[in-house]
Amino acid sequence: MSGRYALGIDFGTESGRAVLVDCAEGRELGATVYPYRHGVIDERLPAPHDGVELEPDWALQDPEDYVRTLQEAVPALLAETGIDPAEVIGIGIDVTACTMLPTRDDGTPLCLLEDLRGNPHAWVKLWKHHAAQPEADRINQVAAERGETWLPRYGGKISSEWFFAKALQILDEAPEIYARADRLIEAADWIVWQLTDTETRNSCTAGYKAIWSKSEGFPSNAYFAALDPRFEHVVDEKMSRAISPLGTRAGGLSEQAAGWTGLRPGTAVAVANVDAHVATPAATVTEPGTMVLIMGTSICHILLGAEPALVEGMCGVVEDGVVPGLFGFEAGQTAVGDIFAWFAEDAVPPEYHEAAAREGTDIHGVLEADAAKLRPGESGLLALDWWNGNRSILVDAELSGLLVGLSLATKAPEIYRALLEATAFGTRVIVDAFLETGVAVDGMVACGGLPEKNRLLMQIFADVTGREFAVAASKQTPALGSAMFGAVAAGAKLGGFDSIEDASSEMARLGDERYVPNSANKAVYDELYAEYVRLHDLFGRGGNDAMKRLRAVQRRVIESDAVG
Amino acid sequence: MSGRYALGIDFGTESGRAVLVDCAEGRELGATVYPYRHGVIDERLPAPHDGVELEPDWALQDPEDYVRTLQEAVPALLAETGIDPAEVIGIGIDVTACTMLPTRDDGTPLCLLEDLRGNPHAWVKLWKHHAAQPEADRINQVAAERGETWLPRYGGKISSEWFFAKALQILDEAPEIYARADRLIEAADWIVWQLTDTETRNSCTAGYKAIWSKSEGFPSNAYFAALDPRFEHVVDEKMSRAISPLGTRAGGLSEQAAGWTGLRPGTAVAVANVDAHVATPAATVTEPGTMVLIMGTSICHILLGAEPALVEGMCGVVEDGVVPGLFGFEAGQTAVGDIFAWFAEDAVPPEYHEAAAREGTDIHGVLEADAAKLRPGESGLLALDWWNGNRSILVDAELSGLLVGLSLATKAPEIYRALLEATAFGTRVIVDAFLETGVAVDGMVACGGLPEKNRLLMQIFADVTGREFAVAASKQTPALGSAMFGAVAAGAKLGGFDSIEDASSEMARLGDERYVPNSANKAVYDELYAEYVRLHDLFGRGGNDAMKRLRAVQRRVIESDAVG
Repeated sequence: MSGRYALGIDFGTESGRAVLVDCAEGRELGATVYPYRHGVIDERLPAPHDGVELEPDWALQDPEDYVRTLQEAVPALLAETGIDPAEVIGIGIDVTACTMLPTRDDGTPLCLLEDLRGNPHAWVKLWKHHAAQPEADRINQVAAERGETWLPRYGGKISSEWFFAKALQILDEAPEIYARADRLIEAADWIVWQLTDTETRNSCTAGYKAIWSKSEGFPSNAYFAALDPRFEHVVDEKMSRAISPLGTRAGGLSEQAAGWTGLRPGTAVAVANVDAHVATPAATVTEPGTMVLIMGTSICHILLGAEPALVEGMCGVVEDGVVPGLFGFEAGQTAVGDIFAWFAEDAVPPEYHEAAAREGTDIHGVLEADAAKLRPGESGLLALDWWNGNRSILVDAELSGLLVGLSLATKAPEIYRALLEATAFGTRVIVDAFLETGVAVDGMVACGGLPEKNRLLMQIFADVTGREFAVAASKQTPALGSAMFGAVAAGAKLGGFDSIEDASSEMARLGDERYVPNSANKAVYDELYAEYVRLHDLFGRGGNDAMKRLRAVQRRVIESDAVG
Repeated sequence: MSGRYALGIDFGTESGRAVLVDCAEGRELGATVYPYRHGVIDERLPAPHDGVELEPDWALQDPEDYVRTLQEAVPALLAETGIDPAEVIGIGIDVTACTMLPTRDDGTPLCLLEDLRGNPHAWVKLWKHHAAQPEADRINQVAAERGETWLPRYGGKISSEWFFAKALQILDEAPEIYARADRLIEAADWIVWQLTDTETRNSCTAGYKAIWSKSEGFPSNAYFAALDPRFEHVVDEKMSRAISPLGTRAGGLSEQAAGWTGLRPGTAVAVANVDAHVATPAATVTEPGTMVLIMGTSICHILLGAEPALVEGMCGVVEDGVVPGLFGFEAGQTAVGDIFAWFAEDAVPPEYHEAAAREGTDIHGVLEADAAKLRPGESGLLALDWWNGNRSILVDAELSGLLVGLSLATKAPEIYRALLEATAFGTRVIVDAFLETGVAVDGMVACGGLPEKNRLLMQIFADVTGREFAVAASKQTPALGSAMFGAVAAGAKLGGFDSIEDASSEMARLGDERYVPNSANKAVYDELYAEYVRLHDLFGRGGNDAMKRLRAVQRRVIESDAVG
């Protein structure tokens, strides 16, 4: 016990998790979780406004759930670990993004104002709020027409999940809320504001979600005006051009927040961060060349580079976006664990569920055990892993899943393995896109929920990419990463660190296990990957647009149903 | 009760079925089934030779099972119906084909000879014996090299299931059996031989399975010599060039067969027939223009034409092959009910099985009910129905099943419906191939096991093809058709008919139900069919050979497994 501890809080989709970490060795002393009272608000507003129903694709949150996390999880953690608050030197947080809200000048969320509480647009729009697609379309169309130079940094497409699409939706649909919003702010920055009484904006959410770059700033006012004349001054009126690099001390813990948490007033608080990005140094990576894969329902790929580069289909490349001084590349696969979960839930016959019950394991365990007995290529199956469209590198939500090679002898574990392989092929396409642009990808480190649950998946990723995979030792890399940035905000003088590189080398570790590519498997996978790429390009680059036309027919039928 | 009855016996894969039919009105008076004692012999020979194991792909039968069917099912049928044997005027039979065996000059199967009984090649090779692929490859290669004009009549490819492939396998692998075989004969013709003491050969199996045509006869001796010098005179040495049109009286019932069956000696026996083909007049069709679909695990499409034509991917076009005086076109889809059964067994999660148990229905009933609530195009899914390759019109066993449009929201009934639709699209491709060659396809009549089990399937077939579907009234069209040919063999003078057309108009009926195309559904299906055809041509005609390459990888991996 070093007597120097940092607190990291990871605000997830359904709950907030607080972790206390020893700065000397990175040991995680304890973790507490606060499940949000209102969780994801996607059907109706909380009482007494539960008469207000939400449209499909809406997803809101209650900002008070974040405050309750501070009030509940942190005191519980201190009690559980018995750590003296005086020995907690820094605090860092991360939040899902883009998750944003409108507030008053003093930070009061508009949804806490009695007269606005019944308006859905006054609430926090969660990352997976997908109702701003028309605004995203407009953002992309206007950007393309004007030849905006920032568009290629985002793979040529701004997502409906991101900041300006959500902000513009407020303006479009609830101009009175837009007018009352003194500030439009990421939930991450808003929580830091609550902790410190100081409004800051971090370089990660600004860069990846709000089209900001260190060298070029935000899009021009002329561009915003082209979207809507009332939107021209959105940055200067409701946001800020002062963007802080990660690890910056946002301020000291306020008296009020000290009261909530049981920590000491003045404790260093780092500017906010995002779950995937903050996990990178927690997975030991602070230098170019090693890709971090945050593997869960989807995969987020983070890679650092010393130079900027335009790589096809990125979610973004942001200077200071992950580690100050470097360019952080983010790529992504929209569905990974989600596909396996879909398959297990919707396409596996009873015998495997019965086997799972008999063996006291879960359905994935049974499928994995059987799939592991197969050799690459043995099933004759190949899939395109586009069950939720494709982010990197095609950036096309209209694409859909494909399975080929089916026969009357095809069994569930064979399809399961084909799905695992398809997600690995998807990652290899991303790796190849980096290599083609001259961005080095040497090492691979995985973190997130999937690696520990599915060893076969990890071996397949190693075999398919021909690269050794390590796995982060921590099972809660976002919270660990946040704690590390908290220690950086405190600085070396107070027992923390002067850089995230120093914090990472002291506090982050890899697990002992390595997944080493099997060269015989790799050879077969090279052949299958060639087929994957051919189908990828055929269906993804215009050779055969069946997927898009099927979606168009589907939409038309469903809409005519709704009308009829 | 007219006092004029005909007996039809349908020798299937697992059992033989005898049906007695009133010639005046076609009423089926009763049916009895004899389940073969040895069923399909595909693992080891029957005792005492059960030490002889069969290779994969082998499938044999015991000719004594056919005799036992005569001895068991027919007397039971007479007893059950109480019909006076003197009032049974004619007998017809049909057998699966090509199902063939080697015999002595007197018709004794070689497998009944003590010294040969332990040799698998002495037994009956069942239609689904698939071990003669190397011989089929040779047959096709040599035919292509020599530019044999008969090859296009069979879609450019002779199947390993057919007569000369099986005969050549005997020669290749068991020349001593080939030498001892005085006769090589279809099981259908062999059974008629047993009934009449007369060896005949029918135009249906000769034409569809043994490359015979009324105008050109068999392939030349030079061709057979090119396959193997010992094979040069196979037709003249072991077969016959005397081919009888369907409905011909093969002879009168022998004393011995009369003893087996309880029928009167001398009763007219028709030359043999094949299950799918004999079902055609039983489904009321004896004229050009109406397609008969025999729908079960697979679909066999039979269409009559007044003129010969080369239609892409036929299983065969044979003059006198179905109805004397007309050209019978046969096309086929290799897997239909088999795909639905695969899906129900291997890809449907427990909740639907539980619902089936709860509702006291089967899993297909549950899936059909849910699938019927969907509108065409609503699922966004499309399949290529090639789970067992493609016969018509691509004639390519290397093709495999494909499913596109999958999303995280895809549910089992949606996939089920997409599979039903895919088989309908497959039939529409066949219909289009006829139309493009100028062969008329106006009416559609279905028979077989599927139409009564799956009404949604029938409606989809109507909607996809834009044609009204009727369904044969009889649930046992092969046995009915055989009885009808038995009545033709008897002739009008004895109370039967002078032609199959006459027999059909008296004895065959359609059910009352009609499946009428819904024009709104048809319009959506036209769009989906266009996508189907694009994918069909892309994967089936060389645009993207992923399916074949995946099979090649699969074969290599499995073979190296077997070696390793």
